Amino acid sequence: MSKPKGFEIPVGVRDYLPRAVSKLRAIEWNVLECMERWGYRQIMTPTMEYYDTVGVASSTSDQKLFKLLNNRGTTLVLRSDMTAPIARVVSSLLKEEEVPLRLSYHANVFRAIEEEAGREAEFFQTGVELVGDDSPEADAEVVALAIASLQAAGVASFKIAMGHVGFLNGLFEEIIPGRQAEQEALKELLLGRDVVGYRTAIEALGLAAEHRDKLEAILRLRGGKEICEQATRLSVEQQTLQSIAHLCEVWEVLEAYGVSEHVLIDLTMIGDFSYYTGMTFEGYAAEIGFPVCNGGRYDNLLQQFGRSVPATGFALKTNRIVDGVDGIEIETKRPILILYDEQGRQEALSAAAQLRTAGRIVVTGLAGGPEDERHQQQDLYAEVYSYTVAERQPVQGRELP
Amino acid sequence: MSKPKGFEIPVGVRDYLPRAVSKLRAIEWNVLECMERWGYRQIMTPTMEYYDTVGVASSTSDQKLFKLLNNRGTTLVLRSDMTAPIARVVSSLLKEEEVPLRLSYHANVFRAIEEEAGREAEFFQTGVELVGDDSPEADAEVVALAIASLQAAGVASFKIAMGHVGFLNGLFEEIIPGRQAEQEALKELLLGRDVVGYRTAIEALGLAAEHRDKLEAILRLRGGKEICEQATRLSVEQQTLQSIAHLCEVWEVLEAYGVSEHVLIDLTMIGDFSYYTGMTFEGYAAEIGFPVCNGGRYDNLLQQFGRSVPATGFALKTNRIVDGVDGIEIETKRPILILYDEQGRQEALSAAAQLRTAGRIVVTGLAGGPEDERHQQQDLYAEVYSYTVAERQPVQGRELP
Repeated sequence: MSKPKGFEIPVGVRDYLPRAVSKLRAIEWNVLECMERWGYRQIMTPTMEYYDTVGVASSTSDQKLFKLLNNRGTTLVLRSDMTAPIARVVSSLLKEEEVPLRLSYHANVFRAIEEEAGREAEFFQTGVELVGDDSPEADAEVVALAIASLQAAGVASFKIAMGHVGFLNGLFEEIIPGRQAEQEALKELLLGRDVVGYRTAIEALGLAAEHRDKLEAILRLRGGKEICEQATRLSVEQQTLQSIAHLCEVWEVLEAYGVSEHVLIDLTMIGDFSYYTGMTFEGYAAEIGFPVCNGGRYDNLLQQFGRSVPATGFALKTNRIVDGVDGIEIETKRPILILYDEQGRQEALSAAAQLRTAGRIVVTGLAGGPEDERHQQQDLYAEVYSYTVAERQPVQGRELP
Repeated sequence: MSKPKGFEIPVGVRDYLPRAVSKLRAIEWNVLECMERWGYRQIMTPTMEYYDTVGVASSTSDQKLFKLLNNRGTTLVLRSDMTAPIARVVSSLLKEEEVPLRLSYHANVFRAIEEEAGREAEFFQTGVELVGDDSPEADAEVVALAIASLQAAGVASFKIAMGHVGFLNGLFEEIIPGRQAEQEALKELLLGRDVVGYRTAIEALGLAAEHRDKLEAILRLRGGKEICEQATRLSVEQQTLQSIAHLCEVWEVLEAYGVSEHVLIDLTMIGDFSYYTGMTFEGYAAEIGFPVCNGGRYDNLLQQFGRSVPATGFALKTNRIVDGVDGIEIETKRPILILYDEQGRQEALSAAAQLRTAGRIVVTGLAGGPEDERHQQQDLYAEVYSYTVAERQPVQGRELP
């Protein structure tokens, strides 16, 4: 282990320079405003939580949690998502509030990473939780809001792939009953979108051709509403059929929202959070090679905090959108420079104050001082005014809107 | 050590419910916009930094740093302020940019705390750094911007107490030369505003009456520009006199800004950051018992990161302002509720979309569903519309602005 050099930063974290900050914050602002208009109210929770409460409830694997000790010797974690902290708040500070509760957030979250290139140890999520409604309407609402949020973030072209945890659970239990390890292995392969690996694995199960074909067929279950009908032919199992029926209802509500063109039913979709219990979805942008949002239903998480209510939600991967999407136009306003000497100082600073009140960006500095020097070398300013004995070029009425 | 209960959170951190978030974010937004108009561009840095770089350079004492290990076994810290991280960025990613650099930030920072009541382990700072200008103009600019920022944050009544690290250093070295431990002890007492302790300590030094009187006299050095003149009579030491002259020039620039009414020269002011080298200041709001902002000049910090340039800056203690100040009016917009059944769904959701586009907050739900139930119990909505077979009360043109 070598000592970090003077200005190194840890692996997986980054600085945002002014241009990137403008873009990130514009997206944050637009998306939160969109969520507000859908009735979602913003909350904030601490960066650090107890390992034994939120840490354990989160779906992040133990070795991916950043852990630290407080002065009492209790283990804390840096939050790895916002769903578990919000479940905690809904069950404590908000426990007297009637459901449904609509809550939004924008937060940085943390995952301890291996040395993998491009993995992030700290990243931003902007998301919502809809607590206390287990209807297909509620699932459709968060999918429709995810679509509206991606549009508000300037993502022009994207698809939402929507699946259901219960479909695969039911189908696997029907075809390879009780073989938990094999079921999990198949899910892992689907989660990793490893089609070749999945095919090899189902070959190796030694099933009757009819059963093998069913497991094979789900790879083709991607498309519109017609997928629901095709899927019902694969199974007679109750959980599987209920899951398909639920998805079908969600689809109908999404049609009423007028957004089903953005959605694809994909019954191989699992969602990578262990707490999902129902519908799950992921959003893919045309410009970006990895998901830009994910969400789903988690009806059992809140009871871990003592309030047994269903919930559904999603989060945008906001910094990926910042890096990968050009849809947000950032207006770079060039500042005005006002130079002055001691005699002109008061008049200059008063002109600067007036311009700022009118919404202009104004930098002030002494004539001959460091700002003046920089100005001589670089073309940074939209306009330059002088309040000096040697040169008087004051701000005129026309510069003030 | 008892195991934390289901929904406990660590000591010193907190949740912000929607109302508090609205206030915090309104202050954040207003202050950052104010800073932008003064030519300050926002940057963001990671929550975690290397202990050996930013951790060591920060002025936070070692036992107050939150430390954790990454997967490589390197010690990381949670940032304890933004000044050291920004010094790192200015010396690395921004090293090609000519000074002066004007940078702003809004960030959460962390301090490991003892069991003291009311101490915060995580809190928000909104601040600026002005890098590359060591003139009194630059110091006055950040004080004037601190004043503008407090006003933008809705703090109606406040005072800025302004001092200079060099004044006390020079005076103590003149009167009790070389007695480092005693000098530090006196500074600690002044930092803690422990006047009684300070008087006891100077009595105990066994000084000639004339010298003791001088150390006593500084307690009365609080006031306007006249303080500078009074202070020059206490010392013949170069550093002391230069410090006073510098403060006097800063005061004159603040007069030109038209803000000196908010400022008080206080030569017992030290500022609680060890990296301060010149002018320091603290802001006190009438409504709040502790400082709401602090700042000062730190001309030696950047050279630790390899770029030897002077700098000055300040930070607002944003969450203290949220808790203590009523100056920001938060408009609580009551949402519209639209209820529907399957027949009315498409029309209802389309009306909701139109209202949202027009800037209204709209919640939708099934008639007879959980949202309808909540609505029957609580008066939450500004208006309620129905799109059902049983009851049709559609949104009319007049609801759309």
